[in-house]
Amino acid sequence: MDRRSFIKKTGVAAGAAAAATSLAAPAVAQGRKEMVIVSSWPRDFPGLGLSAQRLAQRITDMTEGQITTQYFASGERVGGFDVFDEVASGNAQAYNAADYYWKGKHPGWAFFTAVPFGLTYTEQSAWINHMGGQALWDELGDEFGLKALPCGNTGVQMGGWFNKEIETVDDLKGLKMRIPGLGGDVMAKVGASPVSLPGSQIYENLVSGAVDATEWVGPYNDFFLKFYEAAKYYYFPGMHEPGAGLSFGMNKSWWSGLTKTEQLIIEAACQMENEVAMSENNANNATYLNRLINEHGVELREFSDEIYDSFGEAAAEVMDEARKHSDLANRIYESFDKARTNVAGWMKLSDVGYSLKRNRVLGL
Amino acid sequence: MDRRSFIKKTGVAAGAAAAATSLAAPAVAQGRKEMVIVSSWPRDFPGLGLSAQRLAQRITDMTEGQITTQYFASGERVGGFDVFDEVASGNAQAYNAADYYWKGKHPGWAFFTAVPFGLTYTEQSAWINHMGGQALWDELGDEFGLKALPCGNTGVQMGGWFNKEIETVDDLKGLKMRIPGLGGDVMAKVGASPVSLPGSQIYENLVSGAVDATEWVGPYNDFFLKFYEAAKYYYFPGMHEPGAGLSFGMNKSWWSGLTKTEQLIIEAACQMENEVAMSENNANNATYLNRLINEHGVELREFSDEIYDSFGEAAAEVMDEARKHSDLANRIYESFDKARTNVAGWMKLSDVGYSLKRNRVLGL
Repeated sequence: MDRRSFIKKTGVAAGAAAAATSLAAPAVAQGRKEMVIVSSWPRDFPGLGLSAQRLAQRITDMTEGQITTQYFASGERVGGFDVFDEVASGNAQAYNAADYYWKGKHPGWAFFTAVPFGLTYTEQSAWINHMGGQALWDELGDEFGLKALPCGNTGVQMGGWFNKEIETVDDLKGLKMRIPGLGGDVMAKVGASPVSLPGSQIYENLVSGAVDATEWVGPYNDFFLKFYEAAKYYYFPGMHEPGAGLSFGMNKSWWSGLTKTEQLIIEAACQMENEVAMSENNANNATYLNRLINEHGVELREFSDEIYDSFGEAAAEVMDEARKHSDLANRIYESFDKARTNVAGWMKLSDVGYSLKRNRVLGL
Repeated sequence: MDRRSFIKKTGVAAGAAAAATSLAAPAVAQGRKEMVIVSSWPRDFPGLGLSAQRLAQRITDMTEGQITTQYFASGERVGGFDVFDEVASGNAQAYNAADYYWKGKHPGWAFFTAVPFGLTYTEQSAWINHMGGQALWDELGDEFGLKALPCGNTGVQMGGWFNKEIETVDDLKGLKMRIPGLGGDVMAKVGASPVSLPGSQIYENLVSGAVDATEWVGPYNDFFLKFYEAAKYYYFPGMHEPGAGLSFGMNKSWWSGLTKTEQLIIEAACQMENEVAMSENNANNATYLNRLINEHGVELREFSDEIYDSFGEAAAEVMDEARKHSDLANRIYESFDKARTNVAGWMKLSDVGYSLKRNRVLGL
């Protein structure tokens, strides 16, 4: 009998958890597995944090405690950017993060979160699941002793919060902006100064003026970080993270020691969370965008075609540099690029083409 | 030990399955549950059929045979359109189908597959998971003794195969077209004669001239049904099924008798399949569209704005009729309509808005 059903069946309440824990020890000896999960997200953070916590609970529940997860939010065990080393070293079994944080270790990681001018959620899903993406992610993971799976997606991110209007590329020059990953490299090429900060440190840097601008996610996630207090111009669409895929990265040796059933359950739990998190963002973004505009005076702005052309040129250079890193980086780029051409072509006829026609007829 | 691992571990091949079945009997007595699944899809049919079969296998595997599924394709146990009654009556435990097949029983069912001028995959996912859709689906299911979950999605469907060009609404008048659900009702209002046929019967009716036109799914699924032999004009985008959600409908009493863990596993298996199937279609559609055009002389055509305006007027009437059916139908419509306005507004800034900007810059 596992710990949870023991508590339920004997009527022992939560207060007696310590007693239940000691009683559960023999069960652990029978093959129960502890899974320590370290996260890049603050505890209870709407969107990202709650999604990671939901996944941890689901793995315990689906296995009836056969795999018992212990979740540590950013800073509770290690810092938000230290989770990679914690898991690769075997100190913890898994992380919730965005793999583009590790682009300094290998630029290939960025492609499994998002790259500038990259894939939307549906396109990324096609690439990862059916066009060779997961196999390349596994190959990259092998170099670091990790096995990563998709387990959430922000959808297309907003372009960011600025304390002045950005009408031409010149307005970006010299701007200190929090934007990590390859998107930051694009910003550097058009003249801005990108910096990387965990989510928990952005607000204070924006308010103090240490940075002039920041991107984070989208209206739902951004609302709670109150960036509007220091930067009221909110630009769309972001070129840098058009469908940022969040990842559940596991220690590869630990993963390999799981039974096939345990692996299947983790895969399904992650894939479920991938869609649940994505759709949560899309369900909430319009509501929170309206609140930002109506309650906090946020000004919505669209990047001009001229600025997008400059982003495009810079992104092409950044991609060229990334693929030159290694044979694997080049193969990841080529697979990604082929998927982008193929699926984007289909999306023009389908999701995008249909939406434009429907919206015109219905006045949406 | 479950039947499958028994076979594997003792090296008994498939031919000895009868012996394995009798050996499994004691395990069944210990609480193993048989889940008979009946499907609307032909066996091994690319896309729909393979997806349903994959899900059935996954449920057995994830539960280590605690729930042992037995899958029957369309016609193997009951006909493709008879699966609803088979499951509602308790003769089988679950079906794989498209719930709009049951619009004659209640028009509310259509909204959980697709309705004309309805939701794309990402929009549907937001509505079902986070904007009240699943609760209404459950309420509808309760009226028939069913519990349904999303477990696949075709993405935006093509508008259909026609044996002549459709340049104006007049070209649709008198046309006999296979198109089920509320999309068929829209076609009737613009002057066509819709008929409903299971996938397995479309080809023969199209070749014989019993129907002049048909829709099915998209390039990947349609390729294998060879409609191009009788109708070479292939129109996009379909207004009738902009993200057709496939469903896994279970007998409600049976579902209620499962443990919480078993329910969690089925939910995750279905939600996983939802995304895996959707992304499989999007990954394959461009490739098969090219093959249809280059190998089979198919002519790709886009519906004109004038035709879409007529579809839009007819769809509004069809929606008005559907919601008048009952209080529940009206509440389903209102929830759907609110989600459409809300999420489509966000998609204009995000997936759609970004795709247009990226595609322009990259020449996609």
